[in-house]
Amino acid sequence: MNEESNCQWRVARRPKGNVCAEDFAYEEHPIPDIGPGEFLLRTLYLGIRPVMRMYMQGLAVAGETPLQIGDLIHGRGVAQVVRSHHPDFAPGDVIQGQLGWQTWKASRGTEAERIRRLDYTGLPYSLGAGVLGMNGFSAYTGFVHCGHPMAGDVAVVSAAAGGVGSTVIQIARIMGCRVIGIAGGAKKCELLLELGCDAAIDYKSEDVGARLNELCPDGIDVYFDNVGGEMLETCMEHLAMHARIVLCGSISEYMRDEPFGLRNYTNLRMVNGCMSGFFVYNFEHLFDEATERLVAWIRDGKLKPVEDIVDGFDNMPEALARLYEGDNVGVQVCRVRPEPEPGDTLVSAG
Amino acid sequence: MNEESNCQWRVARRPKGNVCAEDFAYEEHPIPDIGPGEFLLRTLYLGIRPVMRMYMQGLAVAGETPLQIGDLIHGRGVAQVVRSHHPDFAPGDVIQGQLGWQTWKASRGTEAERIRRLDYTGLPYSLGAGVLGMNGFSAYTGFVHCGHPMAGDVAVVSAAAGGVGSTVIQIARIMGCRVIGIAGGAKKCELLLELGCDAAIDYKSEDVGARLNELCPDGIDVYFDNVGGEMLETCMEHLAMHARIVLCGSISEYMRDEPFGLRNYTNLRMVNGCMSGFFVYNFEHLFDEATERLVAWIRDGKLKPVEDIVDGFDNMPEALARLYEGDNVGVQVCRVRPEPEPGDTLVSAG
Repeated sequence: MNEESNCQWRVARRPKGNVCAEDFAYEEHPIPDIGPGEFLLRTLYLGIRPVMRMYMQGLAVAGETPLQIGDLIHGRGVAQVVRSHHPDFAPGDVIQGQLGWQTWKASRGTEAERIRRLDYTGLPYSLGAGVLGMNGFSAYTGFVHCGHPMAGDVAVVSAAAGGVGSTVIQIARIMGCRVIGIAGGAKKCELLLELGCDAAIDYKSEDVGARLNELCPDGIDVYFDNVGGEMLETCMEHLAMHARIVLCGSISEYMRDEPFGLRNYTNLRMVNGCMSGFFVYNFEHLFDEATERLVAWIRDGKLKPVEDIVDGFDNMPEALARLYEGDNVGVQVCRVRPEPEPGDTLVSAG
Repeated sequence: MNEESNCQWRVARRPKGNVCAEDFAYEEHPIPDIGPGEFLLRTLYLGIRPVMRMYMQGLAVAGETPLQIGDLIHGRGVAQVVRSHHPDFAPGDVIQGQLGWQTWKASRGTEAERIRRLDYTGLPYSLGAGVLGMNGFSAYTGFVHCGHPMAGDVAVVSAAAGGVGSTVIQIARIMGCRVIGIAGGAKKCELLLELGCDAAIDYKSEDVGARLNELCPDGIDVYFDNVGGEMLETCMEHLAMHARIVLCGSISEYMRDEPFGLRNYTNLRMVNGCMSGFFVYNFEHLFDEATERLVAWIRDGKLKPVEDIVDGFDNMPEALARLYEGDNVGVQVCRVRPEPEPGDTLVSAG
């Protein structure tokens, strides 16, 4: 990364299988000027998400414009305002929003960028690209407002050590659920227990169906699905009466050539079960509520953000590949620059 | 049918493909005696339902005991009490409940029989095996309490000329929805328009997806699914924001060797859609409400029960086969005996 330029990662070709170096083009451009109504953003953190591979494939997903070969890759992150000709943003403000894979951006604060001010104080900036960004908002609004958890419910979470999952399991615990996390590998399963899961299932070495039989013979009340495909089908063999399934992500689908056919959808019938699809931007009216509660839980020590921080903008492509290899734990964030203030705390931009 | 005997239809062998004569065994037994706490029922009507083929296959479905070869086939219907040693049932009372495919029954009024008194007056007895029985209760509780229809919603109903569907489309109209019915053949589609559908799609001669594009470019708000499989998948390509899918029946699944794999379940995500499974006995607390409203709508001329009455107990097997051939219109009912009172009206059994 060259501090004198706006460094960018663009789509070089459509990924086949997992993303690899050749799918990305690195470019350097002049740091943009700003015109009337614009403000200049200096990127601090960029989130890395499974959906980004789908952007690179040119798919119209997550409400973003389909990308052509040569386009800047979509990506949200945290940035600081450096200069501004916009009435709502002043130098020093920290925001989260649609930045793209680049180190500078001239923004107008359009609706499509969905820029949110980070007004809270005392917590690390990086959380704005994770638990206090769309990741945490997905966990909160999806689990609470689609899953309708009640104390005593059995909550099962797949990809439970991932960015969204690691927050969902903790919210489920806070809500008084008995929480079963599913993840791949002993190390991740240990983390799940540390984060307060009552039980962890290692799908790589254990039979998930048999373990669910054992752990929740009366069935699952809330299943928070980050995986889709076979994992969803397995969990749907273990539904309690009035079970709620929240479809948040479907990482198992993203690399398939043909979509998975869910064969037991009719299982919803006998138990009056409900499968809810969920897209975080449909819950924008709840983002303030989510922020308030997540911040309070973090401050009270009830919720521990799990971050997997990759240093350096140059490493963005590799970081995305790692997501699909299932190696990451927690929310994957790229630290583009050191935090501008000492103490790793957000400055109030109120 | 021999009036001097208790005539029965039993499982002779497991159906392969559609049911045929050889799958059924006809038997005659003495009319049963009743012991203490029992009452003797004389069958008037028996409902014919797709699920009965699954009973014959020995499957544990709809909460009924799996059948062995030689067992009496499960079936609900309307009967009159002839003699009674039970405090709650008096000679002359008319009830609906689990009778089995037989012309007489000695009952104890057990929970499994789910016997309901037909206390209303002035409407034909046969309705107790249709719109005022589980058929109509499925339509009412499924559409209203799982589909959450609002005036102005686009409601799409599959198998709309069938027993449940023909009631759902009329309730949808009463609730102020714009109603699109899907059925097979011009004759059925004509009926749908007569019953108040705003549009009808003939899936045998038309491209359902193309017609939905045309008829509801903004998508479906409530899809009431009686079919499952490809039809469900097609409708799921046309969901409006916050769409609700109610899975009531899946007749397309019942004769498949392998269950259908639903490939576009992830479509629920972007629209915050919700797919609810639904089993009528989970709504027993709403049966009185359903009865009250259905009776009122029928009396006010707003809801027209569509019955397809087959005469004669001997014709039960053929009547079940017809359901799978898609030939029937409305709720299929077998009239076992003429109604006991003149005027085809229910006597008050209050």
